[in-house]
Amino acid sequence: MIDTARALDAGDPLAEFRGRFDLPEGVVYLDGNSLGALPRATRERVSQVVDAEWGRDLIRSWNSADWIGMPQRIGAKIAPLIGAQPHEVIACDSVSVNLSKLIGAALQMRPGRNVVLSEPGNFPTDLYMVQGSPAAQRLAARDKIVDALDDDVALLMLTHVHYKTGEMFDMAALTKAAHDAGALVLWDLSHSGGAVPVDLNACNADLAVGCGYKYLNGGPGAPAYAFVAERHHDALHNPISGWMGHAAPFAFSDEYEPAAGVSRLLAGTPPVLAMAALECGVDLMAEIGIEPLVAKSRALSEFFRAAMAEHCPQLECVSPADAPMRGSQLSYRHKDAYALCQVLIARGVIGDFRDPDILRFGFAPAYVSYEDAAKAVNALAEILENDEWDAPQFKKRAAVT
Amino acid sequence: MIDTARALDAGDPLAEFRGRFDLPEGVVYLDGNSLGALPRATRERVSQVVDAEWGRDLIRSWNSADWIGMPQRIGAKIAPLIGAQPHEVIACDSVSVNLSKLIGAALQMRPGRNVVLSEPGNFPTDLYMVQGSPAAQRLAARDKIVDALDDDVALLMLTHVHYKTGEMFDMAALTKAAHDAGALVLWDLSHSGGAVPVDLNACNADLAVGCGYKYLNGGPGAPAYAFVAERHHDALHNPISGWMGHAAPFAFSDEYEPAAGVSRLLAGTPPVLAMAALECGVDLMAEIGIEPLVAKSRALSEFFRAAMAEHCPQLECVSPADAPMRGSQLSYRHKDAYALCQVLIARGVIGDFRDPDILRFGFAPAYVSYEDAAKAVNALAEILENDEWDAPQFKKRAAVT
Repeated sequence: MIDTARALDAGDPLAEFRGRFDLPEGVVYLDGNSLGALPRATRERVSQVVDAEWGRDLIRSWNSADWIGMPQRIGAKIAPLIGAQPHEVIACDSVSVNLSKLIGAALQMRPGRNVVLSEPGNFPTDLYMVQGSPAAQRLAARDKIVDALDDDVALLMLTHVHYKTGEMFDMAALTKAAHDAGALVLWDLSHSGGAVPVDLNACNADLAVGCGYKYLNGGPGAPAYAFVAERHHDALHNPISGWMGHAAPFAFSDEYEPAAGVSRLLAGTPPVLAMAALECGVDLMAEIGIEPLVAKSRALSEFFRAAMAEHCPQLECVSPADAPMRGSQLSYRHKDAYALCQVLIARGVIGDFRDPDILRFGFAPAYVSYEDAAKAVNALAEILENDEWDAPQFKKRAAVT
Repeated sequence: MIDTARALDAGDPLAEFRGRFDLPEGVVYLDGNSLGALPRATRERVSQVVDAEWGRDLIRSWNSADWIGMPQRIGAKIAPLIGAQPHEVIACDSVSVNLSKLIGAALQMRPGRNVVLSEPGNFPTDLYMVQGSPAAQRLAARDKIVDALDDDVALLMLTHVHYKTGEMFDMAALTKAAHDAGALVLWDLSHSGGAVPVDLNACNADLAVGCGYKYLNGGPGAPAYAFVAERHHDALHNPISGWMGHAAPFAFSDEYEPAAGVSRLLAGTPPVLAMAALECGVDLMAEIGIEPLVAKSRALSEFFRAAMAEHCPQLECVSPADAPMRGSQLSYRHKDAYALCQVLIARGVIGDFRDPDILRFGFAPAYVSYEDAAKAVNALAEILENDEWDAPQFKKRAAVT
């Protein structure tokens, strides 16, 4: 299997990009869907921001280094990865905070409707944001979502690629169904952007959010992004209406007047160090381009899936078998998934665990090799064969799982 | 004047701390109330986070480097600077977003009341956040605030030190007046924390927010902090109810259940690079301690005020003449304040301009010297004497002023 993997790596058009990341020796990293790896360029760029832009130029860098333009500039670079126009995307805040803004905005755009429809088991923060909002939450299983669309639904809010199983929604079909029912749609692209094909405008999507620290490799807790289709720009009311989203922030007026377009989604001052790191990750993904990333993701995850079926048949794959139907990840069910994950980590294979029984492997196409995938399968096969995971030290839960 | 200044520097107990910051050669930096200077320790710490914690240890650092504990840990370090208990403060998001959370929380805690009372000319984002919220905004001039407190007021929201003039509210008296009227109080400490005495609990304050990138030297756009008095912890409803504020974020439950205490104010994943830089700034301020910072702030700004009165009498000081009545800043009115600010910057003296006619000088007590202050006054006196500012190139406004 290793030989096959090496042959595939030799023919991989993305192989050259692995060297653009700083990957630790001896580690197989299959958790880029939780935290993307460090692009080498990021280290130098962050130093530059700290030393020269902050330390030397101080407050002047808001103009001279165009810190003030970061949210729009980075958003515009993300846009082609998700089928958006450059002025429809902005980088700011967290996914959670951006969800809160867009849920509020959607309720305002659909007066007389107060339901946000989603699915049970959606990524928790998406559901929690609805629960904290003035909206009523309605949940429907994924095959019942279309039936649950009625005149009360202001917003259909779904995560495009499921964080746990990797199942992918049909964005075009569900967007159309929601529109037919008079609702808006908000897509959470956290597990999609930079890894799977997304074409927001071709699908006629209304709103979207996405994560900066997964496939965009923006660093731990990197700022997120938000999309608003151009046709909604004028009507958009951001309930978290901060000074950075004002038409003239430095006029210091008492009256809020929203900036034109998606800029009105800004709230407070952007975290410049984190934004700079995000931009490096986005630049690298934009340089590779979404098509090669998708092609590699599918081929690599298929290689892994086939190898797992052969060498670890006792693990049940809960992700779609058809690559175009899933995100860049494969998830397996096992009653001792947590312990298995810990033993793998102890052997240098980093995947992750999702409560209660899911072992999840992410295939960040920009830097994961076929050899990585083969090593992971081999390690897991050995662990299973030798019952290695069945020891107390592997079952003690850490704070973050 | 320079000789006097040097003598004062020689006797300054905080002089040793100037070397803990990376200040550019030839620059007099009097804008630490807009963006604090770079602590030398920050450079190394940020590199460590990028290289070792992110690059090498990757996802494991959420546990091994305790990234997950950053918001509470940094909050606890800020607490003694503002008279709070360690578990009453949390570092997260921006001031704007934290205002949005706490305005929403206050409305929930005062059912039947829907007014947020503030003053005209408060820092814009504070007012904008009320305007974006379900609350009704009421503004009253500072000498009419107590009269404007009635049964409709859910929340009195004020900025403790005014960003433009440096005027400081009597926190104890206004908090008591609000409580007597049945309202809660939210203090914005952005221009206070780390520079003036703040004793939230002695004043019986309810809620507060503050800025990480001014006197706390946390870096451009550093995360902010929020305070909730312990007595309100159980009743606190955060409308931006994200997964990081959940009682068990990694249980991935569909139902939001707030974490205990101030942790429920968290929303999304914290921006780790920005949090690490913030922690360095906070550590340094905590090491110096608030009392020496306040003593230096007052003595230094008094030195500047007296020198300005003598050498630049044509500029009208709009800040309180009595040091304990103001923040760590002095503001002067001049019809060509913008151009004067630009000429000063061209001469290496960085203050800032606030629309329409204010020239503002901040005295970050940890690193500004008396000699800095003297140089700034001398430069301004020369500029005024020679009409240097009256040239078109100094009147063209930049994007960020």
